[in-house]
Amino acid sequence: MNIRNILPAILLATGICLPGTAQVASVDMLIRGGLVVTMDKDRRVLDTGMVAVRGGVIVAVGTERELAGRFRAPLVIDAAGKAVIPGLINTHTHIPMTLFRGIADDLELHEWLTKYIFPAEAGNVTEAFVRAGTRLGLAEMIRGGTTTYCDMYYFEDAIAGETAKAGVRGVLGQTVIGFPVPDYKTPEDALAGAERFIRKWKDHPLIIPAIAPHAPYTVATEYLKRIRALSDRLQAPVLIHVSETQAEVDTIRQRYGAPPVRYLADIGALNERTVAAHAVHVSDAEIDLLRQAGAGVAHNPQSNMKLASGIAPVPALLAKGVAVGLGTDGAASNNDLDLWEEMDMAAKLHKVATGDPRAVPAAQAFAMATITGAEALHIAHLTGSLEAGKRADIVIADLDRFHQLPRYNIYSTLVYTTKASDVRTVIINGRLVMRDRRLLTLDEPAIRREAAQYRDAVLRSLGQ
Amino acid sequence: MNIRNILPAILLATGICLPGTAQVASVDMLIRGGLVVTMDKDRRVLDTGMVAVRGGVIVAVGTERELAGRFRAPLVIDAAGKAVIPGLINTHTHIPMTLFRGIADDLELHEWLTKYIFPAEAGNVTEAFVRAGTRLGLAEMIRGGTTTYCDMYYFEDAIAGETAKAGVRGVLGQTVIGFPVPDYKTPEDALAGAERFIRKWKDHPLIIPAIAPHAPYTVATEYLKRIRALSDRLQAPVLIHVSETQAEVDTIRQRYGAPPVRYLADIGALNERTVAAHAVHVSDAEIDLLRQAGAGVAHNPQSNMKLASGIAPVPALLAKGVAVGLGTDGAASNNDLDLWEEMDMAAKLHKVATGDPRAVPAAQAFAMATITGAEALHIAHLTGSLEAGKRADIVIADLDRFHQLPRYNIYSTLVYTTKASDVRTVIINGRLVMRDRRLLTLDEPAIRREAAQYRDAVLRSLGQ
Repeated sequence: MNIRNILPAILLATGICLPGTAQVASVDMLIRGGLVVTMDKDRRVLDTGMVAVRGGVIVAVGTERELAGRFRAPLVIDAAGKAVIPGLINTHTHIPMTLFRGIADDLELHEWLTKYIFPAEAGNVTEAFVRAGTRLGLAEMIRGGTTTYCDMYYFEDAIAGETAKAGVRGVLGQTVIGFPVPDYKTPEDALAGAERFIRKWKDHPLIIPAIAPHAPYTVATEYLKRIRALSDRLQAPVLIHVSETQAEVDTIRQRYGAPPVRYLADIGALNERTVAAHAVHVSDAEIDLLRQAGAGVAHNPQSNMKLASGIAPVPALLAKGVAVGLGTDGAASNNDLDLWEEMDMAAKLHKVATGDPRAVPAAQAFAMATITGAEALHIAHLTGSLEAGKRADIVIADLDRFHQLPRYNIYSTLVYTTKASDVRTVIINGRLVMRDRRLLTLDEPAIRREAAQYRDAVLRSLGQ
Repeated sequence: MNIRNILPAILLATGICLPGTAQVASVDMLIRGGLVVTMDKDRRVLDTGMVAVRGGVIVAVGTERELAGRFRAPLVIDAAGKAVIPGLINTHTHIPMTLFRGIADDLELHEWLTKYIFPAEAGNVTEAFVRAGTRLGLAEMIRGGTTTYCDMYYFEDAIAGETAKAGVRGVLGQTVIGFPVPDYKTPEDALAGAERFIRKWKDHPLIIPAIAPHAPYTVATEYLKRIRALSDRLQAPVLIHVSETQAEVDTIRQRYGAPPVRYLADIGALNERTVAAHAVHVSDAEIDLLRQAGAGVAHNPQSNMKLASGIAPVPALLAKGVAVGLGTDGAASNNDLDLWEEMDMAAKLHKVATGDPRAVPAAQAFAMATITGAEALHIAHLTGSLEAGKRADIVIADLDRFHQLPRYNIYSTLVYTTKASDVRTVIINGRLVMRDRRLLTLDEPAIRREAAQYRDAVLRSLGQ
């Protein structure tokens, strides 16, 4: 290896500019002129900033003045008057459930699950259904500026395939559950399938394969322990629903003599690759356990509200140093995959819940959708901020829509007024996946057609 | 008057089709082929419906089959594949405060008001400022499908002028308050100004002039009584903030020995033209008093959450027969004027607040943004539903965006997934004010320019 060949790359990646080396470097893409919200450690906001991308990696972030003349690129994107932000991170989804969006709402939980969701899943969820639902969800997420999502469902290998094809980053967990489901009939088979799934995808540039034990109340202790061992062996994330409802807490207490997080800690099921979805009903002592394990939390404000699950103690989790990201949950319980609404909601919900209008300020809500979300998924070394060395997951959004005017504070503008429809251009891993609101990696008419076909099938399966 | 001239109009308006009179009638506008959500008493939803408009009035609503061949019009709008719904009603705004959108967020209430909002208002609110802020707010509201709004601010005559010019319906209240404000220095002057304002606008086809005593804690008993008398004399609505915070309730209890609604009832300040904004902290007995008076309530879920005011007992208010509409409040405390988000929020907030996922179902949330909102403003005879005889306030919205697919239930689709950006075309009082997302009554570049100019002035006035 010739040091002269790699030196410029090192200098670019580190941002160091040695005297005499200030030559013009070739990169793949330059984003110029926008208001760059880096979400780096110093939370730098660059009024007229530049981002340079090469080989899928951000090689430089700075002001136009700092970087003037240092780069040339075949693709220069003019972001003047727009925000250039880290791609948003949706930390909890069941993406194929987009096809169940709105099949049944506003029902008592048991009725909702047993009369609609479970029969609809049993009667419809095939690999082909999962692929169609994933494509629909990916289209919606890209259009809203989500560049990474964390999913748990069935046929996760098909989800990974569609996600990779669309060029989206995913932490994707194959479900393990204690009863027969569409892809595996036993937890033993699901566990073996999850291991195969992880081995297949573990070196993919976009997919971080994971294992997803559904919840403490649906997966036996033995399997939770074996899943922890698998996670350690393969360095794979563990995605699990935890303490979503009070009923779950009561069940686990009755069954194991401890609340869910304490139980998981006691059996050694928590580790530094755990992502706990919901964590609505957790005590201060359990928050400490999550922190000690290094687990992340996926907070789903809209789903928790719609299903009347409760309000997660997000200010307390954050105060104790737990990384909390934002998630939409599945479209059957939200009913969309819109991170902008979750940001707005998280900022407002915890103010009214605590009685303190200073709780979860806009900058913190925006962090939860970006860098803190990446930390919650244990992938902050890859994404979540605009910094040299990170993968190029970048969103360009309008700042001049009437509902955004005027602008006094960029975080207020982003969290309280910016909508998914304000996202213009989306780059993931250095690849353009949407430009000026045109999707570049998905077939829009086909997605619409499939949604209509599966809708009819779902209605037939429910006898409607 | 010749009976032959007016008979067709009567027949059209009543929807009666006499034998032998089934000739083709000329109307101004036909909206064809859309999914018509009427919000009439029977909550009729017409899969392929038609709406005929003449002279600003809806003359017929029916299926294509029912109305086939009955009308011809110079303007036929094809709404195939789209939703045709009543225009949305924002029951509580301070529209010029759009220019303060995001000047200060996430602060303790006293600091927010005394360090930012009050100085910003004192230093900037002139008639010209009010006109610019109104135009910005109108642009945002029209783009989101709001056709009627209820406002209380200073220089309300200027707001009425801009609103009429833009072709938007408004219940607009001139503020009366117990201390010097930008337009009037004493409540006596404000009261006289309000009377002039009401007399000037009372026969306008779009503007319903009102009087707006700010709140029980900022307006003396004497003025509240005189305002009630003025309301009775001129048939003008009374818009008032009531029981927004616990601090207000404590103040009023201490001052008058009763909580705010009870106090207002005791002094005879409530009538069947009252619109009470917020009603967050009201007892069951006070809900009964609101019902007995025939007062409407403007519920502002996002503002109440963001300012940590509390959660209004909306299910109880509705159960007891109080008409509750939805409002955004001013853009400084929301930070937008988006009724779609308020619908979604109202449906979700009251589920988690009551612990009952059946609370405020989608159809009820949609009613609050349309017909029940019209009832809350005491204008349900004019607007709020698509019915022959009502003014033609009509919105056409997309139903095929990815975030809306597939569609199982129209109310779920509208409330849980449809966004302001999905609104395509807006008709108010029979006039097109937006077509295919192009505003027809407002100067978009001028609004952007003014927003930037006033932003700079506001920052200067705050010493920034």
